[in-house]
Amino acid sequence: MIDLRSDTVTKPSLAMREAMHHAEVGDDVFGDDPTVNQLQRYAADLVGKEAAIFVPSGTMGNLAAILAHAGRGQELLLGDESHIYHYEAGGASALGGLVFHPIPTNTQGELDLAALNAAVRPAYDAHAAQAGLVCLENSHNRCGGTVLSLEYLAQVQQWASSQNLPVHMDGARVFNAAVALGVPASTVTKHVDSVQFCLSKGLGAPIGSIVAGSGEFIKKVHRWRKMLGGGMRQVGVVAAAGLIALNEGRERLIDDHVNAKMLAEALSQLPQIELDLASVQTNIIVFGLRDSTFSPEQLVERLRQAGVLIVPFKGRLRAVTHVDVNREQCAEAANIIAKVLQSA
Amino acid sequence: MIDLRSDTVTKPSLAMREAMHHAEVGDDVFGDDPTVNQLQRYAADLVGKEAAIFVPSGTMGNLAAILAHAGRGQELLLGDESHIYHYEAGGASALGGLVFHPIPTNTQGELDLAALNAAVRPAYDAHAAQAGLVCLENSHNRCGGTVLSLEYLAQVQQWASSQNLPVHMDGARVFNAAVALGVPASTVTKHVDSVQFCLSKGLGAPIGSIVAGSGEFIKKVHRWRKMLGGGMRQVGVVAAAGLIALNEGRERLIDDHVNAKMLAEALSQLPQIELDLASVQTNIIVFGLRDSTFSPEQLVERLRQAGVLIVPFKGRLRAVTHVDVNREQCAEAANIIAKVLQSA
Amino acid sequence: MIDLRSDTVTKPSLAMREAMHHAEVGDDVFGDDPTVNQLQRYAADLVGKEAAIFVPSGTMGNLAAILAHAGRGQELLLGDESHIYHYEAGGASALGGLVFHPIPTNTQGELDLAALNAAVRPAYDAHAAQAGLVCLENSHNRCGGTVLSLEYLAQVQQWASSQNLPVHMDGARVFNAAVALGVPASTVTKHVDSVQFCLSKGLGAPIGSIVAGSGEFIKKVHRWRKMLGGGMRQVGVVAAAGLIALNEGRERLIDDHVNAKMLAEALSQLPQIELDLASVQTNIIVFGLRDSTFSPEQLVERLRQAGVLIVPFKGRLRAVTHVDVNREQCAEAANIIAKVLQSA
Amino acid sequence: MIDLRSDTVTKPSLAMREAMHHAEVGDDVFGDDPTVNQLQRYAADLVGKEAAIFVPSGTMGNLAAILAHAGRGQELLLGDESHIYHYEAGGASALGGLVFHPIPTNTQGELDLAALNAAVRPAYDAHAAQAGLVCLENSHNRCGGTVLSLEYLAQVQQWASSQNLPVHMDGARVFNAAVALGVPASTVTKHVDSVQFCLSKGLGAPIGSIVAGSGEFIKKVHRWRKMLGGGMRQVGVVAAAGLIALNEGRERLIDDHVNAKMLAEALSQLPQIELDLASVQTNIIVFGLRDSTFSPEQLVERLRQAGVLIVPFKGRLRAVTHVDVNREQCAEAANIIAKVLQSA
Repeated sequence: MIDLRSDTVTKPSLAMREAMHHAEVGDDVFGDDPTVNQLQRYAADLVGKEAAIFVPSGTMGNLAAILAHAGRGQELLLGDESHIYHYEAGGASALGGLVFHPIPTNTQGELDLAALNAAVRPAYDAHAAQAGLVCLENSHNRCGGTVLSLEYLAQVQQWASSQNLPVHMDGARVFNAAVALGVPASTVTKHVDSVQFCLSKGLGAPIGSIVAGSGEFIKKVHRWRKMLGGGMRQVGVVAAAGLIALNEGRERLIDDHVNAKMLAEALSQLPQIELDLASVQTNIIVFGLRDSTFSPEQLVERLRQAGVLIVPFKGRLRAVTHVDVNREQCAEAANIIAKVLQSA
Repeated sequence: MIDLRSDTVTKPSLAMREAMHHAEVGDDVFGDDPTVNQLQRYAADLVGKEAAIFVPSGTMGNLAAILAHAGRGQELLLGDESHIYHYEAGGASALGGLVFHPIPTNTQGELDLAALNAAVRPAYDAHAAQAGLVCLENSHNRCGGTVLSLEYLAQVQQWASSQNLPVHMDGARVFNAAVALGVPASTVTKHVDSVQFCLSKGLGAPIGSIVAGSGEFIKKVHRWRKMLGGGMRQVGVVAAAGLIALNEGRERLIDDHVNAKMLAEALSQLPQIELDLASVQTNIIVFGLRDSTFSPEQLVERLRQAGVLIVPFKGRLRAVTHVDVNREQCAEAANIIAKVLQSA
Repeated sequence: MIDLRSDTVTKPSLAMREAMHHAEVGDDVFGDDPTVNQLQRYAADLVGKEAAIFVPSGTMGNLAAILAHAGRGQELLLGDESHIYHYEAGGASALGGLVFHPIPTNTQGELDLAALNAAVRPAYDAHAAQAGLVCLENSHNRCGGTVLSLEYLAQVQQWASSQNLPVHMDGARVFNAAVALGVPASTVTKHVDSVQFCLSKGLGAPIGSIVAGSGEFIKKVHRWRKMLGGGMRQVGVVAAAGLIALNEGRERLIDDHVNAKMLAEALSQLPQIELDLASVQTNIIVFGLRDSTFSPEQLVERLRQAGVLIVPFKGRLRAVTHVDVNREQCAEAANIIAKVLQSA
Repeated sequence: MIDLRSDTVTKPSLAMREAMHHAEVGDDVFGDDPTVNQLQRYAADLVGKEAAIFVPSGTMGNLAAILAHAGRGQELLLGDESHIYHYEAGGASALGGLVFHPIPTNTQGELDLAALNAAVRPAYDAHAAQAGLVCLENSHNRCGGTVLSLEYLAQVQQWASSQNLPVHMDGARVFNAAVALGVPASTVTKHVDSVQFCLSKGLGAPIGSIVAGSGEFIKKVHRWRKMLGGGMRQVGVVAAAGLIALNEGRERLIDDHVNAKMLAEALSQLPQIELDLASVQTNIIVFGLRDSTFSPEQLVERLRQAGVLIVPFKGRLRAVTHVDVNREQCAEAANIIAKVLQSA
């Protein structure tokens, strides 16, 4: 099976398993786990922030960060195609009393600045919920792994600052974005007040995410993490794998991008497939079917039988490259997809 | 001053003031106020529902109804131009833990059925907040007082029923909608599970709104009203005015509509004004300025100096007819607007 | 019927009805109602605060004040016998995400200072919700209308200040407390950051309460009031009655207190009744039955048949004096109670 | 160092580390992790429930269970000495809109049934929040590890059933309770609708807890876990350690109990120590100091210098036995404590 469903399916490497075996641990609820502390310090430095905290998932990372930024009744200006809006069960509203204010998103994953500006309701008017936070996503999942430009980030930063609004980046795949731009992650994240990124996607760790920001902010996140139930005990066992993911997984992301481009190019030459190569900027490939021989769900099933796993995605299809699928397997996947489509 | 800012500015009539003076009252927290009970019974009958309850405002009526329909974490499918989304401070999310899912609204105030259908997230998926309630608005304020057709209401009802979703109507001006359609209000409201309407807009009462629905539902609304602080004591004094509003104010709404059409026709003949007569369906007129001699805010100010009050509205202007402005005043307002525009 | 169930059952006086008839009004959502503005100014001055706001009920007044003082997840230190804890449907937790931390209350309605101090959980500990607000109640309903001494208030103020905690007073009957102490209300309320008091209990208005505090605080309360649905339109009609209540009702409270004492003394001489005269400090009388001839509910029913209304209360009975029951009626009520008990 | 601060400080055994190394894993968000599935099945069987789910912490387990049981605005009847009330940051109120209603707890950790019964507010009364859930804790941390008797559990079950109230057990240490009673855990948990227990306390796993209940209930918990951010990826790595903890850790708890009794007996013979031997029922020892030579904090510090770690606890002191402290170390700890006290 060539599993291209998501980069979340990666399994821990042998090195990670050994690190977990030998990890020095302590009770992290007391701040006593040296491996966790090392991971948090390293992660903060990588994204150029004062402090960082380990959380069990990206969803908790985003939620705790949002709760730390914004109070009951404030509006969350976020993309109408964002992961937080679509795939995090509405937690910020359900649990935190924040108000979703979705902003139209272009194909690059950008929220239009004029729309952002119009979404800030007047401060004098008690009828109007007041904006409390802007959320960006980078790279952008539902837009197909697209990358926000540094120019765009600087513009949002400047505008948000003029409005006294903090900016949080859902950077679940922020290292993919940095690799695509050819810059250190901190060059990306310097434009936002806080960032969440996952150790468990392209970086390959089995579990865990990081939230980074100012020291004061991370103290607040720490409180919300406790309330949410993300304070754990001897977390060093998983932090050890996270450290390896962060150390060794970042550089390797370029391979996933090269593989994705190669696979995308092969697919784009198939007459049955509609694919915009310009949209393949990281490790995600989204494509449509030109004719109606197969529905997306039918093609997924036929490919499964032929040994390739991909997923239906917004009426189209999505394939994601990652550490557990090498170049040869990507080439083979392209061949299998071509054969299945031709056999129809 | 000819005050066309809103139909909320109407002052209680002499008959209402006398009724308030002589109202028979009791402690409504104990259900002991005969005037309130009479109003609630009468209101329920008018909209063809089993039961009704008095609330101090339309905002509380909508909020208590929403809380009674939907639980923590459910999604509210509502129009992206709706009053609830724009002017009720996000209370359903802030206080109730519900998740806003705004749906595009056409110029008639309708939510596209295909968009509604697409907004219901898959039930099997724990990533996805689950829909709990659909909200319609009728007549539709931000669309300029437009009226939902009975056909459209029947379609939404059928679809919502197929999804096991209740439908709430923000019918702050539902009697305007019924008058425009030439049907009893109950013919409109039979398509929804619950409706909120205001006694204090076109109907002319100084204070108060009604929520109506099934007996079981109104019991729940009663509880939420208590928690929100809408349980009051000798409310008969205001309910007495509400009874007159409901009795005598409904028939009179047709005058407001005729006045609005007359005013709109006059305005539409001015070269500086851009106005779609088809959009003037009830007592609200929304129009734009063709040239940039005045900004909306500047025109509002100039008109104020000339004795006419209107408001800026979504980059355009809004005038609303009501009981305290008669036909002659509307004609005069049209003249004043013409003069001010020509004087530029 | 001599109705001693509560001082909430009072009906508006002729003067109030006339004032409602003639009230000058405007749209209070726009701040345009002169009668409301006059009431708010007068109310603020009476309790010595910078600003005040009209709300439809004491429950909303307390809730909006609490939301304005404390954020999501903070603890509310409040009496375990308080009205907010028992009779306001848990709104502060349900809607506001605040955490109830009930403190034992003595028979005088005081929260023990040592217990308050112990209830403040350590700031360094993320396991522990952080205190956000202290609530007092004065006079104290469930303790039988008891009055907090000025010494006690000063102690709480000093302690709360040392903890950087604001203090809110549920002063639904704060003018009863002031009358009992023989001081202006502002001498009582100067010890707290905010106070809510009812126009509709002993003061006799049909509807409404006031929240008072700093100007900045009342701006926040105004926002929460809007979200809760307490922003109303031509509220001057009820504010007019509120002004009379505040003007003329305060001085009159002394009569209710004298009547309550007289009634209590009469009852205390009945062998079947257990009543601590020291507890009758304002207009509330709470008493028990010494033998088991009647249950409280049975006595309530027998008295109802004999023309006196009182209520069961915490396993005992409660009678409340107010403007609609004069001295002779109180004396008669005492006679009726004596007869009913002797007839058993 | 002999670390008796808590049984949370235990470090993963070699067997656990090897199991983590070799764990078969999958993406648990897709339900694809075989080790997690095995752990959940095994855990459900052990406590005699239909289904179970892995969560990252006891706090999340309790919170997700509470959210699954009770809706916005319902009351949580829980012990005033319970872990949920004191150490889980008020999450059920802060995030879930539930209302805490703390019930007095006796020294055995029992909530008085009459008090529970009195805490259920009348259903007809809109002033009163309605009870939604009863929470018990077993063994009881703040009562010193005390165990609820099966008779008591049966009584609560019967009463709750008569009130249509579900019962959740915070059984973080429920296997300690079962061992102390000499019964299978399922004999304890059959009296409750749901139970949370920790793999990471006496059982010795580094991370994780379990919630168990009916299949329908666990589906709901699964949704809330996702929203809270407890859905993780290749969790098999930690579930593998959890399986060993559950398999091998349960039997071993008896050793901790024997060690705790031995240590407690030794301490009880010291004249400076006040200790009720009857309260030492599992692996927790709570004791006071008879004289004021040392404050609890001072003794903790002196013992730390002498090589023994314990913690101050409610004005007294607490020691907890666990897998990483053997009998000899407990004996030595007793000697060290004796010496330090005598040296004063």
